[in-house]
Amino acid sequence: MQMQNTKGQSKINRRLLHTPEGVRDRYGSMVANRRHIREQILSRMRTYGYAEIEPPTLEYFDVFSGEMSTTSARKLYKFSDAEGNTLVLRPDFTPSVARCVSKYFAEGTDAVRLCYAGQTFLNGTGLQGKLREVTELGAELMNEGSVAADAEIIALLIETLQCTGLKEFIVSIGDADYYKGICEEAGIDEETEAELRDALTARNYHAAERLIDDLQMKEQLQVVLMLSELVGDESVIDRARQLVTNARSLAAIDRLDAVYRTLADYGIAAHISFDLGNLSHFNYYTGITFRAFARGVGDAVARGGRYDRLLSRFGKDTPAIGFMISLDDLMSTLQAQGVCLPEEEKPQIITYEEEGASFRQALTQARELRAQGHPVILQQAGKGGQA
Amino acid sequence: MQMQNTKGQSKINRRLLHTPEGVRDRYGSMVANRRHIREQILSRMRTYGYAEIEPPTLEYFDVFSGEMSTTSARKLYKFSDAEGNTLVLRPDFTPSVARCVSKYFAEGTDAVRLCYAGQTFLNGTGLQGKLREVTELGAELMNEGSVAADAEIIALLIETLQCTGLKEFIVSIGDADYYKGICEEAGIDEETEAELRDALTARNYHAAERLIDDLQMKEQLQVVLMLSELVGDESVIDRARQLVTNARSLAAIDRLDAVYRTLADYGIAAHISFDLGNLSHFNYYTGITFRAFARGVGDAVARGGRYDRLLSRFGKDTPAIGFMISLDDLMSTLQAQGVCLPEEEKPQIITYEEEGASFRQALTQARELRAQGHPVILQQAGKGGQA
Repeated sequence: MQMQNTKGQSKINRRLLHTPEGVRDRYGSMVANRRHIREQILSRMRTYGYAEIEPPTLEYFDVFSGEMSTTSARKLYKFSDAEGNTLVLRPDFTPSVARCVSKYFAEGTDAVRLCYAGQTFLNGTGLQGKLREVTELGAELMNEGSVAADAEIIALLIETLQCTGLKEFIVSIGDADYYKGICEEAGIDEETEAELRDALTARNYHAAERLIDDLQMKEQLQVVLMLSELVGDESVIDRARQLVTNARSLAAIDRLDAVYRTLADYGIAAHISFDLGNLSHFNYYTGITFRAFARGVGDAVARGGRYDRLLSRFGKDTPAIGFMISLDDLMSTLQAQGVCLPEEEKPQIITYEEEGASFRQALTQARELRAQGHPVILQQAGKGGQA
Repeated sequence: MQMQNTKGQSKINRRLLHTPEGVRDRYGSMVANRRHIREQILSRMRTYGYAEIEPPTLEYFDVFSGEMSTTSARKLYKFSDAEGNTLVLRPDFTPSVARCVSKYFAEGTDAVRLCYAGQTFLNGTGLQGKLREVTELGAELMNEGSVAADAEIIALLIETLQCTGLKEFIVSIGDADYYKGICEEAGIDEETEAELRDALTARNYHAAERLIDDLQMKEQLQVVLMLSELVGDESVIDRARQLVTNARSLAAIDRLDAVYRTLADYGIAAHISFDLGNLSHFNYYTGITFRAFARGVGDAVARGGRYDRLLSRFGKDTPAIGFMISLDDLMSTLQAQGVCLPEEEKPQIITYEEEGASFRQALTQARELRAQGHPVILQQAGKGGQA
């Protein structure tokens, strides 16, 4: 039970003990806690009628490439199969679930409710401290474009977070169409819009102002410089409405208002705030977007939104909305907030003297306890306990 | 809700719907059943004092390369990281668990009991119909070299299979040392031994006979040609004992005898048979080996054995034994044997007329049922049910 003592071997062994950057070992109560939280969340999703789906970890590159920037595509773990196709480790569940719904529910028009739990992979060389293997839990509501669907998904996210014991969190809601309506009215081209969005996302208002100054329709675009102020409680809705006149932005605001009223019916308005300045993933989302923030973790622990154009890539033109929770971040925030998780029962140790009668007696006792669900370790006397 | 009708797009979409060869989508009751079985198995392992461990999916190649033939190494999914290290998707949990025990229990001498559930990956181009992504469940008992440990692991495997509802199965036991003792006594070199083993594994007795004829110590080696007959109930033990005189083979037989008597104490002898002709994975296993066979699947649904040399690669020279169950094969055999699994409760549909009072009333009703664990779908009247 000693490290081997030639210097060379010891070096090899030490290197062999390491995990690659961005992944980690989990054991002990950490794994038990993760399993408990995962099961709580999936159970809650099931009570909303969401059925679990298990797409493969390996998928064709094309399943994900559609909505991806070149930078993101570079972060995928890729291989070639024997036929020369490019395969990737899934970076995200949603395109896989969209593919499945397009394939297995091709003809159906009824709402499809699905949930999932599993690993995603991104080779984030630049992202220090970010894990490359992440456990995600999520829910997707497809074939449903209604206000009720938006509210159901957000309510499910909030109740899911509540069921883990998390208390201090908010879900911050925005809408891709509010911003897109302003850009559309101003008639700016896609490239300029993307540049403007990058500047706003980086909170580089100087660059954004300069961009707008160079354009016609300056006046309409001034509003985007105020997006970062459209943050806070439901009063944001009225403030945002007064800033625009174009139909698309106004429709987005009316929709947010309706969703908010339904969420109030759910009794969870206290967890809601608004942020019309969040423009992330806007080439993906087509309507409402949201992120969950909790004390203890800087980044969002969950995010989601409406993505009505994704399924048409797979041949089924149907609306959809969903969210995903990062289990890793959720566990960190639960710990930071001091949420108590049920402790696993420690195994009881039953000892015996030797083979034969003494062993059989200990075994009978162990078997009874195990049948009642209690963990029991059988151990020969004098051999020491479990580490 | 129609397939896009230009011919080119429709072709793209159809290709996009496919999963790569060797992996598959799972949904509906199949996923629910898998989850149920997985939880049953992990619960049973916990009652034996086994704690769950979660090593990463991505590991350094070196963690697995030690015990691997070049052919197997070629089947790994490999990438390079930014620092030029070779990473792989784990093909097997045991080396990862061995690495973890060597790292996190480096100094301990007490028995360590660990279990796991997760995916493994092998790019089996040649293996038609074999999945490339497999879900494995397993248990490992480390720091324990006793007969009691061998029996505990085999008893745990049997009780684990029993707890899934599986009835018609046997665990077929062999011992690497019986065969190795014969080869050692005959003094054949490693290369010839490997060649002989390949011939015997392929049941190519003609090639094996020719190999033996070319060697000295023919007489001792004749026994290996009879290994394939050492199959059946516990009477195999006595027959095998009479065929050898070398100490190593005899010790292996005495050990098998002792393990069998302990398994009889567990009351599970009816599920045990012997097969001293199974030589697979013998450069890995150092003592007892076993495989579980069940009606409905040709290949073993579980396999395991003692691997006392693996941990020393990671700097901890300690004995260990374990097994793994293929969840995919287990589900197939449960289905083939007609084992009934608990049916998931179908969601109840509660309809409402419109936003406001009617919705709130439906929501109250839904919330009560959900709180009791029943799945409920809220749906506007006239919108059709869940697909």
